[in-house]
Amino acid sequence: MKVAVKIDEIRQQVREWKQQGLTVGLVPTMGYLHEGHGSLIKKSVELCDKTVVSVFLNPTQFGPNEDLDSYPRDFESDKELCQSLGADLVFHPSVEEMYGEDASTYVEIVSEMPKQLCGKTRPIHFRGVCTVVSKLFNIVNPDKAFFGEKDAQQLAIIRKMVRDMSYGIEIVGCPIVREADGLAKSSRNTYLNEEERKASLCLSRAVKLGREMVEKGEESAEKVTSEMKNLINKEPLARIDYVQAVDGVTMLPVDTLKKGVLVAMAVYIGNTRLIDNFSVKE
Amino acid sequence: MKVAVKIDEIRQQVREWKQQGLTVGLVPTMGYLHEGHGSLIKKSVELCDKTVVSVFLNPTQFGPNEDLDSYPRDFESDKELCQSLGADLVFHPSVEEMYGEDASTYVEIVSEMPKQLCGKTRPIHFRGVCTVVSKLFNIVNPDKAFFGEKDAQQLAIIRKMVRDMSYGIEIVGCPIVREADGLAKSSRNTYLNEEERKASLCLSRAVKLGREMVEKGEESAEKVTSEMKNLINKEPLARIDYVQAVDGVTMLPVDTLKKGVLVAMAVYIGNTRLIDNFSVKE
Repeated sequence: MKVAVKIDEIRQQVREWKQQGLTVGLVPTMGYLHEGHGSLIKKSVELCDKTVVSVFLNPTQFGPNEDLDSYPRDFESDKELCQSLGADLVFHPSVEEMYGEDASTYVEIVSEMPKQLCGKTRPIHFRGVCTVVSKLFNIVNPDKAFFGEKDAQQLAIIRKMVRDMSYGIEIVGCPIVREADGLAKSSRNTYLNEEERKASLCLSRAVKLGREMVEKGEESAEKVTSEMKNLINKEPLARIDYVQAVDGVTMLPVDTLKKGVLVAMAVYIGNTRLIDNFSVKE
Repeated sequence: MKVAVKIDEIRQQVREWKQQGLTVGLVPTMGYLHEGHGSLIKKSVELCDKTVVSVFLNPTQFGPNEDLDSYPRDFESDKELCQSLGADLVFHPSVEEMYGEDASTYVEIVSEMPKQLCGKTRPIHFRGVCTVVSKLFNIVNPDKAFFGEKDAQQLAIIRKMVRDMSYGIEIVGCPIVREADGLAKSSRNTYLNEEERKASLCLSRAVKLGREMVEKGEESAEKVTSEMKNLINKEPLARIDYVQAVDGVTMLPVDTLKKGVLVAMAVYIGNTRLIDNFSVKE
């Protein structure tokens, strides 16, 4: 497995692979990889001839009061995981390599979509995501790219960006990977102290409750999200940002729970903002 | 020479070429091709193994009161020119093929650059240009792309977008092609009646005057642009939008004429808005 820090190294390697007729998968990450990322890498290795994992903590998707500076990093461990799962190339550029001094071009969805859910409290987040993912697409030129369903709004936004911008890239969404007790895996889980770690289970419990209500036939978004909020509000360390049912493609609020609806939440546990969600099946 | 109207046809053809190790040049146009476009096609045929010419009248770069509806079209003639110059593929998609019903993703330079010169009166123009050119890049995946120096601000903006968005594409600028009497070739010249056609020569005469002043050693942007404006203002059918000296990379106004400075103008002749420019050499 190679590690490349320069854009030109990646381009040259991918050009060689493409000339050999090989397919290339891209797994974009911000590093501090966990089993959730691992599942994306495994899927790419399964579906593509070559797999590129990018490890880049992208500053343009963090707001001024967010956790860019404290975001956890461990590139040695990231490399080991990538290698152990069969990745072929890790792209680990510096901020300077990715953004020139005067970089000011952005890719942005100009609609209500990126203003919903996480976009309400993170107004520049998805513009930063679309921009860096476009850049990674332009650098790596992958056939498929792999994203986790935990970041459900991000996944929907990337799918739309790929359609709108005519990228010939298949976006593969992969299921949420959870700890044994239910907490969705996230690099940010490392922020939680022991007490908060216990409290954080209110998210996955709310997901479980909501999913069970839907499975029993409840179709009212209001009823299901209310019950989920009640469960979360019983946890003193939890503060709800949102619990909401939205259309799985447009991210716009819906009243009725039917196939394709996403029920998503963001909850602060202490100072740590966590997200979780489930999609209504069938 | 093939004509493709579907994005997937282009992708498949280019994928085959790339697997054969062939280089691909892209000449993006809005159709109604003239010798200016012809020079871009020739350059691409000279420098690349395969040449794709896109003919697409892009609605998103026209403002609500601009000339989208009246913009001239003649696809049969465009095809003939492309074929005669050795192009390999003409991409002629419908608006529906390029933009889905709910397309709302844009590529935009968020700085003063696209607000200068033509951006002052055409506020959404360069966002539309960056978006459609990005889409063409994503569809065609060219090694080189060819743009005319007549649209000098567009060329500078595309160069910046390519840098900022990490496209691995070389942008080749090609010199302005002029009619025998000096008028820069433009699809919009067809709007001019006989009287306006004569009046339109004030643009190229102003370019000639400005260039001569610079060659004689004049370094004051104010003096040169004033003289150019005086010349144009003597023409009763002409109305100046701008005559301005700007840095050739940033497009920001400059006071001193030195190497790399662009002296650009937009002038209405009757209802027709024409542009012309020269760059300070040495």
